[in-house]
Amino acid sequence: MSVAPPRPIKPGPVAIIAGSGTLPLHVAASAERAGHAVFVALLAGSADAADYAGFDHQTFGLGQFGALSKALTSRGILDAAFIGAVVRPGITDIRPDMGLIRHWQTITAAFRKGDDGLLSAVVDILEAHGVRVVSALDLAPDLSITNPGPVGARQPEGAARGEIDLGLELIAALSPFDVGQCVVVSDGRPVAIEGAEGTDAMLARVAEMRRNGRLKRETGGGVLIKAPKRGQNMRIDIPTIGPETVRRAAEAGLQGIAITVGEVIVADREKTIALADASGLFIEATR
Amino acid sequence: MSVAPPRPIKPGPVAIIAGSGTLPLHVAASAERAGHAVFVALLAGSADAADYAGFDHQTFGLGQFGALSKALTSRGILDAAFIGAVVRPGITDIRPDMGLIRHWQTITAAFRKGDDGLLSAVVDILEAHGVRVVSALDLAPDLSITNPGPVGARQPEGAARGEIDLGLELIAALSPFDVGQCVVVSDGRPVAIEGAEGTDAMLARVAEMRRNGRLKRETGGGVLIKAPKRGQNMRIDIPTIGPETVRRAAEAGLQGIAITVGEVIVADREKTIALADASGLFIEATR
Repeated sequence: MSVAPPRPIKPGPVAIIAGSGTLPLHVAASAERAGHAVFVALLAGSADAADYAGFDHQTFGLGQFGALSKALTSRGILDAAFIGAVVRPGITDIRPDMGLIRHWQTITAAFRKGDDGLLSAVVDILEAHGVRVVSALDLAPDLSITNPGPVGARQPEGAARGEIDLGLELIAALSPFDVGQCVVVSDGRPVAIEGAEGTDAMLARVAEMRRNGRLKRETGGGVLIKAPKRGQNMRIDIPTIGPETVRRAAEAGLQGIAITVGEVIVADREKTIALADASGLFIEATR
Repeated sequence: MSVAPPRPIKPGPVAIIAGSGTLPLHVAASAERAGHAVFVALLAGSADAADYAGFDHQTFGLGQFGALSKALTSRGILDAAFIGAVVRPGITDIRPDMGLIRHWQTITAAFRKGDDGLLSAVVDILEAHGVRVVSALDLAPDLSITNPGPVGARQPEGAARGEIDLGLELIAALSPFDVGQCVVVSDGRPVAIEGAEGTDAMLARVAEMRRNGRLKRETGGGVLIKAPKRGQNMRIDIPTIGPETVRRAAEAGLQGIAITVGEVIVADREKTIALADASGLFIEATR
């Protein structure tokens, strides 16, 4: 499992194009710590301007590409990253401004290609305007774990090391398919693979299988393994864990969580680690 | 996706070693149609003797291997198949008779190897006693679909053919792992992969994702694909669909179900096909 090392980002102003959730705020703060002047472009209907009072920010409607482009250019911004959740719009939800109208054919074509296709088209349009789109982890490297080993107080014991390896192999085997950054391995075999339901729902399913007796616990309890697929486009989708992941992993009776070095966002790091320690779970960063 | 063709079974008496559910009854009836004298060995606590009044049958406790062996030998039975669900026993649930005592070391070792390991050990012990253990589909070939093409009134349309191919590729990619005979592909991408939760729970999840809007329906609705893994031990685990599968696939808004020729049991075939036709779903047998 390897992804190219972060591209060097020039010191200077960067843009965070923010959807919903607390993640964009963490990315903005981390980019600031890394020495960047940060501009946050909020997507109307997804991100709330009140949360970004501490940052240079502006809200843009879904079709206001011309306005966005102007805001970036006037600040001399050359690098931007998407982060946060966006509810996929219907094509009629988009009111294109003059800046977007001339890309309208690209947009309508992308609408037929699913979520990744749509976002990829937006990336292409931005780059055609001279703004390089990078991974949020390029702007905020301290949101991932940069050294292998235990992140909190515990470390993998017994069967867990082998379960981590098996999980990483399984994620690698799934790489050709548009699915699955995340699996649970317990008692030496995969018991849950993430599909469109997402990590939280997958962990709820493992907890339910523990309760109804479908999953016995014979060895250490099992491990959640989360990592990007080979060739994953980290500019539009970064694997993430946070306090909710830890809470659900504990409910599922797991021994711990494994993530890959430099490739997975740990949101709310202090809270995430404290909760793992308090729950007796390990978080292991692995290559 | 290919599995060796059924081994020729000699005409003559055969044994069905039956767990719970209606499947053992279908296998027994099908084996009788195929010209075999059928003896049903019922596992105490799993199968109910009243259901098998029409067959030569006997109930055996979990440790009564000596008695089972004697029953098979006295009938001249050379071929036996396991079928139906069995709740994995604890080792203390097994009260070995004299016939099993001398295999006790094998049994206790197998208990450490998970469900498949335990069943494989029982297969080995039976074969050491001169009884060949075959797949239930070897005794009851008319329970699978033997020709490619539509099984009911409908056939795959639009995106469905490509989705079937993608699902078969995904199941093949999962073959090295002890997981996943079954996936749902919708709008051209995998949206659910079966883990330890089973097919019914996986389909319930897809239905839930339709309801909560996480899964849009942009093309034909998607397909459930079910097939054995490469190298799957068909003597201890055969992929199966039935009326409940169709009911849940319909609830999940799918266009149909694809299974592989000769490798998947269609339980309650008439009812399954009638329900698929009534629900507007295809069932496609594919190579």
